[in-house]
Amino acid sequence: MKDILIENFIKQALLEDMPYGDITTDNLIDEFNSTKGYFVAKENGVIAGINILKRVFTIIDNNIKFNCFFDDGNKVKKGDIILEIIGKTRSILSGERLALNIIQRMSGIASYTKLFVDKLKEFPIRVVDTRKTTPNFRIFEKEAVLFGGGYNHRFNLSDAVMIKDNHIEASGGIKNAVTKIRKGIPHTTKIEVEVENIEMLKEALEVKADIIMLDNMSLDMMREAVKINNHQAIIEASGNMTLDRVYDVAKCGVDIISVGAITHSYRSLDISLRFKI
Amino acid sequence: MKDILIENFIKQALLEDMPYGDITTDNLIDEFNSTKGYFVAKENGVIAGINILKRVFTIIDNNIKFNCFFDDGNKVKKGDIILEIIGKTRSILSGERLALNIIQRMSGIASYTKLFVDKLKEFPIRVVDTRKTTPNFRIFEKEAVLFGGGYNHRFNLSDAVMIKDNHIEASGGIKNAVTKIRKGIPHTTKIEVEVENIEMLKEALEVKADIIMLDNMSLDMMREAVKINNHQAIIEASGNMTLDRVYDVAKCGVDIISVGAITHSYRSLDISLRFKI
Amino acid sequence: MKDILIENFIKQALLEDMPYGDITTDNLIDEFNSTKGYFVAKENGVIAGINILKRVFTIIDNNIKFNCFFDDGNKVKKGDIILEIIGKTRSILSGERLALNIIQRMSGIASYTKLFVDKLKEFPIRVVDTRKTTPNFRIFEKEAVLFGGGYNHRFNLSDAVMIKDNHIEASGGIKNAVTKIRKGIPHTTKIEVEVENIEMLKEALEVKADIIMLDNMSLDMMREAVKINNHQAIIEASGNMTLDRVYDVAKCGVDIISVGAITHSYRSLDISLRFKI
Amino acid sequence: MKDILIENFIKQALLEDMPYGDITTDNLIDEFNSTKGYFVAKENGVIAGINILKRVFTIIDNNIKFNCFFDDGNKVKKGDIILEIIGKTRSILSGERLALNIIQRMSGIASYTKLFVDKLKEFPIRVVDTRKTTPNFRIFEKEAVLFGGGYNHRFNLSDAVMIKDNHIEASGGIKNAVTKIRKGIPHTTKIEVEVENIEMLKEALEVKADIIMLDNMSLDMMREAVKINNHQAIIEASGNMTLDRVYDVAKCGVDIISVGAITHSYRSLDISLRFKI
Amino acid sequence: MKDILIENFIKQALLEDMPYGDITTDNLIDEFNSTKGYFVAKENGVIAGINILKRVFTIIDNNIKFNCFFDDGNKVKKGDIILEIIGKTRSILSGERLALNIIQRMSGIASYTKLFVDKLKEFPIRVVDTRKTTPNFRIFEKEAVLFGGGYNHRFNLSDAVMIKDNHIEASGGIKNAVTKIRKGIPHTTKIEVEVENIEMLKEALEVKADIIMLDNMSLDMMREAVKINNHQAIIEASGNMTLDRVYDVAKCGVDIISVGAITHSYRSLDISLRFKI
Amino acid sequence: MKDILIENFIKQALLEDMPYGDITTDNLIDEFNSTKGYFVAKENGVIAGINILKRVFTIIDNNIKFNCFFDDGNKVKKGDIILEIIGKTRSILSGERLALNIIQRMSGIASYTKLFVDKLKEFPIRVVDTRKTTPNFRIFEKEAVLFGGGYNHRFNLSDAVMIKDNHIEASGGIKNAVTKIRKGIPHTTKIEVEVENIEMLKEALEVKADIIMLDNMSLDMMREAVKINNHQAIIEASGNMTLDRVYDVAKCGVDIISVGAITHSYRSLDISLRFKI
Repeated sequence: MKDILIENFIKQALLEDMPYGDITTDNLIDEFNSTKGYFVAKENGVIAGINILKRVFTIIDNNIKFNCFFDDGNKVKKGDIILEIIGKTRSILSGERLALNIIQRMSGIASYTKLFVDKLKEFPIRVVDTRKTTPNFRIFEKEAVLFGGGYNHRFNLSDAVMIKDNHIEASGGIKNAVTKIRKGIPHTTKIEVEVENIEMLKEALEVKADIIMLDNMSLDMMREAVKINNHQAIIEASGNMTLDRVYDVAKCGVDIISVGAITHSYRSLDISLRFKI
Repeated sequence: MKDILIENFIKQALLEDMPYGDITTDNLIDEFNSTKGYFVAKENGVIAGINILKRVFTIIDNNIKFNCFFDDGNKVKKGDIILEIIGKTRSILSGERLALNIIQRMSGIASYTKLFVDKLKEFPIRVVDTRKTTPNFRIFEKEAVLFGGGYNHRFNLSDAVMIKDNHIEASGGIKNAVTKIRKGIPHTTKIEVEVENIEMLKEALEVKADIIMLDNMSLDMMREAVKINNHQAIIEASGNMTLDRVYDVAKCGVDIISVGAITHSYRSLDISLRFKI
Repeated sequence: MKDILIENFIKQALLEDMPYGDITTDNLIDEFNSTKGYFVAKENGVIAGINILKRVFTIIDNNIKFNCFFDDGNKVKKGDIILEIIGKTRSILSGERLALNIIQRMSGIASYTKLFVDKLKEFPIRVVDTRKTTPNFRIFEKEAVLFGGGYNHRFNLSDAVMIKDNHIEASGGIKNAVTKIRKGIPHTTKIEVEVENIEMLKEALEVKADIIMLDNMSLDMMREAVKINNHQAIIEASGNMTLDRVYDVAKCGVDIISVGAITHSYRSLDISLRFKI
Repeated sequence: MKDILIENFIKQALLEDMPYGDITTDNLIDEFNSTKGYFVAKENGVIAGINILKRVFTIIDNNIKFNCFFDDGNKVKKGDIILEIIGKTRSILSGERLALNIIQRMSGIASYTKLFVDKLKEFPIRVVDTRKTTPNFRIFEKEAVLFGGGYNHRFNLSDAVMIKDNHIEASGGIKNAVTKIRKGIPHTTKIEVEVENIEMLKEALEVKADIIMLDNMSLDMMREAVKINNHQAIIEASGNMTLDRVYDVAKCGVDIISVGAITHSYRSLDISLRFKI
Repeated sequence: MKDILIENFIKQALLEDMPYGDITTDNLIDEFNSTKGYFVAKENGVIAGINILKRVFTIIDNNIKFNCFFDDGNKVKKGDIILEIIGKTRSILSGERLALNIIQRMSGIASYTKLFVDKLKEFPIRVVDTRKTTPNFRIFEKEAVLFGGGYNHRFNLSDAVMIKDNHIEASGGIKNAVTKIRKGIPHTTKIEVEVENIEMLKEALEVKADIIMLDNMSLDMMREAVKINNHQAIIEASGNMTLDRVYDVAKCGVDIISVGAITHSYRSLDISLRFKI
Repeated sequence: MKDILIENFIKQALLEDMPYGDITTDNLIDEFNSTKGYFVAKENGVIAGINILKRVFTIIDNNIKFNCFFDDGNKVKKGDIILEIIGKTRSILSGERLALNIIQRMSGIASYTKLFVDKLKEFPIRVVDTRKTTPNFRIFEKEAVLFGGGYNHRFNLSDAVMIKDNHIEASGGIKNAVTKIRKGIPHTTKIEVEVENIEMLKEALEVKADIIMLDNMSLDMMREAVKINNHQAIIEASGNMTLDRVYDVAKCGVDIISVGAITHSYRSLDISLRFKI
């Protein structure tokens, strides 16, 4: 269950950040001292990770309380108070850094994803993520993409087929590859084929690939691909999809645009914990 | 031992990316097929993580071989072949994404850090990281900072003292805080105090703080702080240290500049695995 | 990676069976004593789990050697020597029970699956498993199904959608359910709908479900369903599929028959380790 | 503590069945929706695993409530409602399969064991299990044997001595083997010796083995063995003990009959979760 | 398997002692530098833990070599070289403390145990340990007892029955307690009863307890107990068994003397690693 | 977080002591039976570990209650009731041994440490521990030292530098070693140098080592070292610091005395759980 994964992850991260306790706080802050703090957005963006943040603190101290003024996926403006936290000072200070490290990254991804989504709002198209995520942090990064209005691609190498160059070459062509793998995989699994030109596209269509990825194609070629496909397979465009370029790609009529940068090159959203406001 | 941490991390990440195997590769690539691949830089930067990359593949398959043309910390130019990998096609394809996810991030951090370091090369100063790292990935990110020419700050809340606002307030001032904590911590542990003005700095000096962090100070105030300190404590400047600003900060004479962005807002360096060159 | 899962599973099982060693063997058998043993089939069946068996012993003792006379998926007859094992007596005796517990169960499943597959060999149809597996042993049981000539259904609740009664009711009908979930899941994920009658089938077809499960239908209704479907969706028959009944079900023209019993009610295949033959 | 083992096992199994959540339920069922369900026996048998079932759901959701109409070890008839479950629909649907996978297996074992026990009710004899259990699931299977009226044999290779062929041969006879091992093991550990004929039995008695296992003996030989033993050692009969044969074996006067089949070749008891009754 | 437990324990302990590496050694000692070291006894005693020590180093670095001059269980004199270690300086320095922490403690226990054993060498009696061990270190401490010439008592609360005051009281007397528990436990498990006087002893004998522990009895009472027992049960003496007192206790004719102090109050044997001799 | 480490440790230790339950208690004590017990000091000493003891029981059973009459760090006299425990008899009996094993060891350390501290009470000096702790139990042993009035040295090889013989030799002298390592470590980390004579001390002072350890020096040499140091570095005396000798060492004017024996050769304090008083 996702909850168990998240709990394990947080406990491991708390051990990373304070294996033998928070020696400053444990020595200087009285055990029974309580306080109130405010998580404040220091720039505009889309917030993501509020529930994880709450989980971090309740794992440290089950008596911490929260008042939330925003939900995951909401837009925030510089200066907005995202949520209020009330509880023991020690617990709040000890969890502050981990909670911020998670919510800042998730919000950074959501905000960056939202930029792509907003660019394409006139099209019936999905912005999706890739497997280019931080190792062992994928579950958080993929959830952040959803809060930014994006969608997820396959989670890992076990849950969907993606046939690339090497697979095609080793199998003697797309037709052979798709035919062979269809015999081995569960009937519940989709097959995606990566193609570089129109000929490959036609071959993939012939063997009824569920999804066809157009890899680094020109706009002209993508337009032709969409036309030839004629709604048979789902068409995914991929390869260096920047904010500058996605509008033109979308206009070609593809169904999906996958963007590695939203998980591999995002900036953290600036959020801080303040004790006075 | 760091090696045990790294091995555990990689195994966990392999499970994240292929819990029940790589269904495409396992079905299409013959078990005994071998190949040769090349990790190629697709932009200029500083490479970091070669040893981790090798570890990823040897955990999957102990017979994989490498020829390395660069060392961690070396500069690479677009098009450079970083290393050659030889072994079973299955093993190479299955580990490709995880290996790239790590080396791209570590190289991204090293490259970004190097920009700061190069800006300050005329000063006897350190660029250091912070605890603003990706949860459970800290060990890799902090090592990447070193390869970029930077230095590490404390690893976690257990290995050094950092006295901030809340601690000062709860203790009734810097003097009380430092005096109290010195009685509690091992004699092997340093004490850092975060100050916002000259008065606080003087108080921290009076109780012989080992390190004083100037938090979000103006350049003028930093210059004055350095002068008053007169080489007693180590002086660390902190707070939104951007590439634009660090040169001026360094000129104030501080010893250390800590930069959160090198670990919380870096772009991955574009590196790819090619089978033909 | 599957290998890491398997290694973890075996180590845990070795701890279950000898937390503080095998006190009989450790006290009575000389450390340097070597022997040869034979894994022998004591009844007819399909063998599965040879590679796992080898893994059990090499985890205990890396110097154990094997000569295999059969491959996973082969039929064996009573009395056949499946493989020969050579190495330290201690290592062989200590791993014997765990190795047999795994290979007997996997072979039991493969043999039982094979009975279904053989019944249906004249049809272009798949016998598939379900999620009715022994907790934490699924990876082995699902692999055994493959060796018996069967196929796998989805691995878990995360990798494919299966819409049942409760989901349909909570969503206000099949159409709403499928439409709603299609908006939430990755484009790489298939949707299966469980239907109990022809009306539901039509509704599922209308919203283009990828797979339709006919739940506990009469033969007549299944025939009608196949006709109406007319190769649009994949048709899966389910519900108490016994050896007696599957031939008639297959004749209805369905694509898939899922059988819970092959993983929830199999007998172990009788295999023993003999030191003399 | 057994509880910790059970909790770890369940959490691992939940991760096996929904690593990234139950995508159907999470997308279609409202988070706050509640329901009531009934676990119903679909055939006659002995129920076992109710407490484990409850543990599965409370690990998922601490607020789920139960009304139990039967206790572990009770007989149920087809159609009996075993227990009622009330709580969030999401939590119930997500835990359903794991809970059933455990209770069906445990009840299958208890029911099968009960058949043996009932056959022998006129004798002062124990039906006991073996180490032929599903790897890492032993604790559940052995508990189910108890609920079926059976008893447990040793739990693993560390907690009791069992001297077999190979040990005897390597030690130069039963006398040497028992004498040698008695010197090495704690005084709190019993010694069982496996014998194939009367001569071996006598040797085992001479060195005061605590338990003597008659391995695959004829009824005549077992009768003789019981007579010679004359209540000195505990006498255990073993080797292909089927329902057909155990009555005659019991009549020979042995103390214990160990039956591998109750854990290695049981059928799951058919139990289902219904939302309407 | 014990080996897996030991490996897990050592890896965990290495992480305890160098979570992010050995910063002194890693920075000052060249990666390829090799050296030779000597583990030297600095006082007389019995050595125990040589194999564990070797395991510590080979987990760190598989290429380290050893020349052993003593075996576990041997007596050493002040100044004796126990073993020689050859390999990378880094690996030796990084494992030194953990290896010493284990071998010094195990040798301390073996040496202390040996004092008891030597005192009693004229009697056919066992000195045994208790469950008063360091949490999670029991496996090592119990093995050390064996190397000192002692024997082990039960390993834990699961592998043998020990009926004490509270159990007796809650069951309404020894007879009831033994009768009741005999019905619940495997036939492979022994029953020990703790008695405080002759009347209790008689009751325990009546129900054929396997082992009777004489708890804190006077020498006179122990002599009487041994006489009454007349070789029916195993007689264990317990309660503040000091070196001063055990000879007199042994003379009473008991079979077993259990000594908590050998695991709860031992001194480490002084052993050091020298690089020059 | 320390709490997570402690919880993991206790759960692991409970599994060590009762992998399949406490078979005596589980069979003889009614599930709903409650009782009251008293932890009693059986000798004079300093109590440490009360909070850990409470944690052990609440992990077993969250409903157990306590009345504490002493705090960690308090002196107790023979016969004192340390705390009262109220709850289910089963839970109390099952946790008794582990709880005692921890509190007896921690109190043994605290009591032994206190002897050193009391000897030196007229001096402004610290008694500190070393890394000579029981593997994986360090966190408890180091906390016990604090409760005995002592202080902690570095926690592990990662959090402070300690330059010894081998490091010095490999680096070509103290000056080179300190200079080299200072360039590699964080500015938050202290450097300690181990010296054997006055010349080495001077060299260490020259390069401003933070801490200088006088290793096995004579009293005369220590006095000279203190004089030469003249409050520049922290001076730590080390090497066979016995109760007999520490007073004279302290008189030399050192700042710190590190004592291995308080963690490697302590006796457990005798504490027992009584059900009647």
